[in-house]
Parts: sequence; structure tokens; C-alpha cells
Amino acid sequence: MRRGRLEAFSDGVLAIIITIMVLEMKVPHEASFAALRPLLPVFLSYALSFVYLGIYWNNHHHLLHAASRVTGGILWANLHLLFWLSLVPFATHWMGETRFAPAPTAVYGLVLLLAAFAYWILQGRILGAEGCDSALAAALGRDLKGKISQALYLVAVGVAFVQPWVAWAVYVGVALLWLVPDRRIERALAAGDGGAHGG
Amino acid sequence: MRRGRLEAFSDGVLAIIITIMVLEMKVPHEASFAALRPLLPVFLSYALSFVYLGIYWNNHHHLLHAASRVTGGILWANLHLLFWLSLVPFATHWMGETRFAPAPTAVYGLVLLLAAFAYWILQGRILGAEGCDSALAAALGRDLKGKISQALYLVAVGVAFVQPWVAWAVYVGVALLWLVPDRRIERALAAGDGGAHGG
Amino acid sequence: MRRGRLEAFSDGVLAIIITIMVLEMKVPHEASFAALRPLLPVFLSYALSFVYLGIYWNNHHHLLHAASRVTGGILWANLHLLFWLSLVPFATHWMGETRFAPAPTAVYGLVLLLAAFAYWILQGRILGAEGCDSALAAALGRDLKGKISQALYLVAVGVAFVQPWVAWAVYVGVALLWLVPDRRIERALAAGDGGAHGG
Amino acid sequence: MRRGRLEAFSDGVLAIIITIMVLEMKVPHEASFAALRPLLPVFLSYALSFVYLGIYWNNHHHLLHAASRVTGGILWANLHLLFWLSLVPFATHWMGETRFAPAPTAVYGLVLLLAAFAYWILQGRILGAEGCDSALAAALGRDLKGKISQALYLVAVGVAFVQPWVAWAVYVGVALLWLVPDRRIERALAAGDGGAHGG
Repeated sequence: MRRGRLEAFSDGVLAIIITIMVLEMKVPHEASFAALRPLLPVFLSYALSFVYLGIYWNNHHHLLHAASRVTGGILWANLHLLFWLSLVPFATHWMGETRFAPAPTAVYGLVLLLAAFAYWILQGRILGAEGCDSALAAALGRDLKGKISQALYLVAVGVAFVQPWVAWAVYVGVALLWLVPDRRIERALAAGDGGAHGG
Repeated sequence: MRRGRLEAFSDGVLAIIITIMVLEMKVPHEASFAALRPLLPVFLSYALSFVYLGIYWNNHHHLLHAASRVTGGILWANLHLLFWLSLVPFATHWMGETRFAPAPTAVYGLVLLLAAFAYWILQGRILGAEGCDSALAAALGRDLKGKISQALYLVAVGVAFVQPWVAWAVYVGVALLWLVPDRRIERALAAGDGGAHGG
Repeated sequence: MRRGRLEAFSDGVLAIIITIMVLEMKVPHEASFAALRPLLPVFLSYALSFVYLGIYWNNHHHLLHAASRVTGGILWANLHLLFWLSLVPFATHWMGETRFAPAPTAVYGLVLLLAAFAYWILQGRILGAEGCDSALAAALGRDLKGKISQALYLVAVGVAFVQPWVAWAVYVGVALLWLVPDRRIERALAAGDGGAHGG
Repeated sequence: MRRGRLEAFSDGVLAIIITIMVLEMKVPHEASFAALRPLLPVFLSYALSFVYLGIYWNNHHHLLHAASRVTGGILWANLHLLFWLSLVPFATHWMGETRFAPAPTAVYGLVLLLAAFAYWILQGRILGAEGCDSALAAALGRDLKGKISQALYLVAVGVAFVQPWVAWAVYVGVALLWLVPDRRIERALAAGDGGAHGG
């Protein structure tokens, strides 16, 4: 039951974050298609952040599914993750408004990096509570995808100062990498269940 | 249980979308009824979009009720639907502010069309997971109402450039068409349950 | 289960409405207590509307608790109620900003009247589905409190044009009348349960 | 079940409050890191309030977990708590925008004090419903942490007029005091369960 409320609260926060971003797309005063053109970078940033938050929601969903109990440490690691995710609308809007200028593009990557780091901490807390020989531990393995993402964010933050569009391409690339939900956990848990039932 | 969290997240996003639209109705500075008159088109747009989002919530409710399991494809098809629906407040506000000018009225129809298309994809994903001989497949049949709506949106987008008010009348008409929740699914599932129980 | 999702969606919308009202209280630029004084009518309006939405949430909670099944008509009657409640922040803000000027104070009462009317329709739909000899029907009886509230709102709307503060006092009075949750339903249902168990 | 809906509504309101605060961090028009510097006090205020709302969510979670039944008094005590918490974004923003000026820093403490007082009332209501010899009563004991917090807020409100930064340090200190969730309840309930199961 405690997990249920943790999920409900996280869902609420993620649903709000994903939705308030669209409030930043200010309606143009003119009634022409040309008036929409300056909004294009804002729209593209919004779409990318929507996908990122969708990815976090999906993976968070799978991760918590694997948590059989919720400790105080997990609660706070979860809030820590939500804190960095709550800054995504700010970074998204700044990057869009300035049409992918260097500093905002770097800040966007920094927020993604800190969120990825917070996710990694949350994952570690849940792993710690579940044990090293749990289905989750087996599912995550060496967590290559997580490590590669963090490395790529770091590279993109640096590249943003030279070529912001390259950094942006990296953000899109990492999103594509994760678009597939973390089936490893799902599969391993299913296998674990199967084993438990079969055994 | 997975479906439960998908529903909770979708409910959260839909509840926020339906509510933030009202934030766009800026309070007039004067304290007279005359000051409310310029808000009339904004109010009418809000009321129409409220009804549309209510329709989506109702039908989404019935559709997910028919999904016995949730795959990764369904999760993403659902997020895709929420993405287009999240643009409804923007289109609503633009159309209202410009008093149903051609371009914004066409964009409003385009957003409705893309949301309807996303709903159709989600429906297809759930049908794919349930199977062609499922109760849902029987309930939807040839999905005439869905196809007619999409055709009407397409027509309205074109008409908006010539006579925006005709396009608006079409949007109102399609909403009336859907105001009745999708009882086909409900009925067929009830029948299916009855059959299962009776047989 | 269907009722669960209806409650969750309604809770989401009510939670958002109750919270976004506070966004209208704009932070003063000066850092003195004197700068807070012009906000006083806005704050008072906010507090009153918070109480009203709390009352609606409480009574809605009891009412849906009594609904053993959810029909399409109930779904739409519920959305209709949420529509008028979603206009409360607008009316609240307008009334507060104009320091209880006649027209905004009348509009506030009108929104409350329409919400009360929508609640009455929802109640009728649920009664219709439950039957005239249900515990709910017995609990509501002649629904005197509901009828008195609607009459008082109507009077206040008229009075607002002459003496807005009297209208405001009426709104506060009706809120106090309802501050006690609708125990009639609770009690009657408990009695009904007792009877069912005892019999 | 009633408790479930109370938790869901509270979670919704808390999730919205915690998230809308970030909307107040206005995106700078310039695309440089220097443009972020004036936002630092706003960011620090946001981070502190995020932690406070996280603490309230955690403790609220534990407290309601201990409530075996929900009375009308508990419902209203809960709404009363949510009312003061809903003013946190306003106070946070004002304090941040004015760079921790005396009056806004005092108002921030006042809002925290009133929220703490409302939490204390809610706690009393739940204790009253559970009884003096309940696990919750034993867990809370003399509630020293609660009393110290309220005293510290009171001191900080006074100090804010002389040295706002000292008041801010007190707010941070109280947050650190509470960062550990209220394990007393958790432990005592676990012990109570153990006893019940063991006996």
C-alpha cells in the first residue's frame, strides 16, 4: 500500500510537469500561420521534453514495480528525482525561447544529467532494499544504458558551448535509446515469477 | 495493476489539461458585464474543448477497460494521444483570442484530427494485444464513427480558410456525435461477460 | 471499479481547481507588509472559494459513495458539475481584484448557483439509478438544505447590484450552512448497512 | 476506502503545490549564465519549499496510515492543513523575488507556523478518533519535535525583521530536523502489528 501512494504521488507530479510545459507556449497575437513560426523551437523543445518525461514515467513504473517494499531512503531518493525533473520545464522553455543558444542548451543537458543521476541513486536504493541476488539486480546487470546516457549528457553539455545543435542531436539520440521501455526488468521479473510459480 | 497506473497517469494529465484551459480566460480589469463580452469567444472555445476532453476521458475509460493487458506499445500509443491532447489548450486559446480567425480555427481542427488519429492508433494497439476475435473487436466493428469524425475534421480544416464559422459548426457537430459515450464496447463486453458467465 | 476512476478524475480536477486559484494572488513587488494590504480582498475571496470547493469535495465524496453503479448519464452530470466548478477561480479572482464590485460579485453568485444546480442534477441521476426506495433517497429526503442554498444564491445575485457586501455575507452564510458534511447520507447508509447486516 | 480518497486528494493537492512553485521561476530573456544569477535566491527558496512539502507529504503519509477511520473532523482538519500549504508557493516566491527581505521572510515563517499548527490539529483529530492508548498515541509521545519546530518558527518570524538570513538558517535547520520521516509512528505501528500478530 505504501508503494501505491508513492506511485500515485509520483504520477501526479509527473503528470503536472509534463502538462505545465505547454503553458509556456504563448499564443501569438496574430492569427496567421507565419505567427507560429517563431514558436517552432519552443514546440520542438516541448516535444523532446514530453518524450523524456514519458520515458521517465515508463521506467519509473517498471522500477517501482520491482520494489517489494518502500523505505524512507527510497521515498527521499524519489523526491530527489522529482526535484530535478521539476526543473525540466524551466530548462525546456529557456532553450526554446533562446532558439537553442549555448548556455540554455548546456543547462538543459545539466538538468537531464542530474535527473539521470537521481534516477541512478533511486535505483541503487531499491536494489539495496531488494538485495544483490534479486530479480531486479539480475535485470539491470551492469546498467550499461544508464551509464552511456550519463556519459553522453556530459559530452553534450560541453559540446553545447561550441555547437548547440550537436548537443541537441545528442539529447534526441539518448531519448531514442530509451524510447523502448526498460524491458530487462520486466522480462527478468516475469522469468522470476515463472521460476517461482514453476518451482 | 499496470493498467491501474496507466489510467491514473492519463486521468491526471487529462484533469490538468481540462483545468488549465480556464487559466487562459484572463480576468477583465473593469468590473462591468460589458467587460465580459470580449471573453465570449474564449468562453465558447473553452466550453467546446471541455466537452471534447470529457469525451476523450469517457471513451479512453471504456477503451482501457477493454484492455486486459498493457504492452510497451500501448503505453507509448497512450502518451502519443496525451501529447496531442496537451496541445488543445493552446489551440483553444488561440482560436478564442482571435475570435475564430481562419488560421487558428484550422489549427484547432488539425489538433483534433491528430488526437483522433492518435486515439485510433491506441485502439489498434489494444486490439492487436486482445486479438481480432475479442469482445473489443466485435464492439468496434468497422468503427464508422471514428472514421467519419476524422473525415469531418479534415473537411473542417479546409473550410476554416473560407468560412471559419462553418468549421466551428462542424467541430460542435462532431462533439455532439460523440457526446454519447462509446456504448458499443460497454454493451459488447457486458454481453461477452454474460456469455462467459452463462456458458 | 468504474466509480473508482470517476472519483480519481473528479479528485484530480478538484485538486487542481482548488490549487490554481492561489496562482492568481500575484506576489507584490515591494517587500513590505503594506504591499500585502491590496491583496486582502483577493485573499478573502480565495479563502471562501477554498472552503466552497472543500464542501463540494466532501459532499461529492459522500454522494458517489452512495452510487452503487455509474451510468453514462452520471458521468456527464459529473463533468457538467466540474465545468461550473472550473469557473470558480475566474469568478473568485475577478471579485477579489475589483474589491467586491457589483457585477463580479453577482457573477460569483451565478457560478455558485450553476454549480449547485449541476450538483442537484448529478444527485438526481444517481437517485434515478439507485431507485426511490434506496438508502440515498431516504437520506436526502426533501433536500431542504440544497433548495435553500439555491434560493439564497439567487437572492444574493440580485442583492449584489445594490449592496455587494450583503451578497458576500450570504455566500459566507451558505458556506457555513454546508461546512458540516452531508451526514444524512452517511448516517442513512450506515443505518441501511446495519439493517442489511442485522436483518 | 474513505481514507483512500482522502489520501488521493491530498496527494493531488500536494503534487500540484510542489510543482506550480517552479512556474514562478521566470525564464530569463538573455541566453547567458550571468542571466541566471538573479534567479539564485528564487531557486534556493524553491528548493527549501520543495523539501518542506516533501516532509509534509512523508509525515502526512505516515499519519494517515495510522488513522483507521476518517471522521468529518479529520476531513476538515486535513483541508485546513492543505489551505496553509497552498500559500507556500506565494510566500516562497515573494521571499525569493525580494532576495530574503525582512517582511517576506517573516511571512514565509508565518505560513510554515500556521501549516505546522494545522498539522498539529489534524494529528489531534486523528488521535482523538484512535484513542489515547492507540499505537499512534504511544508513537507520538510528547511530540517534542513538533513543539520545537513551532517554537523555532515563532523565533524566526521575529528574527526575520532584524536579520532575515538568520531566520532563513532556522528554516533550513528545522527542515533538516524533519528530513528523517516520522519513524516513531512507523516503528510503533510495526510493533503494534507484531504484538497483534504475535499475541
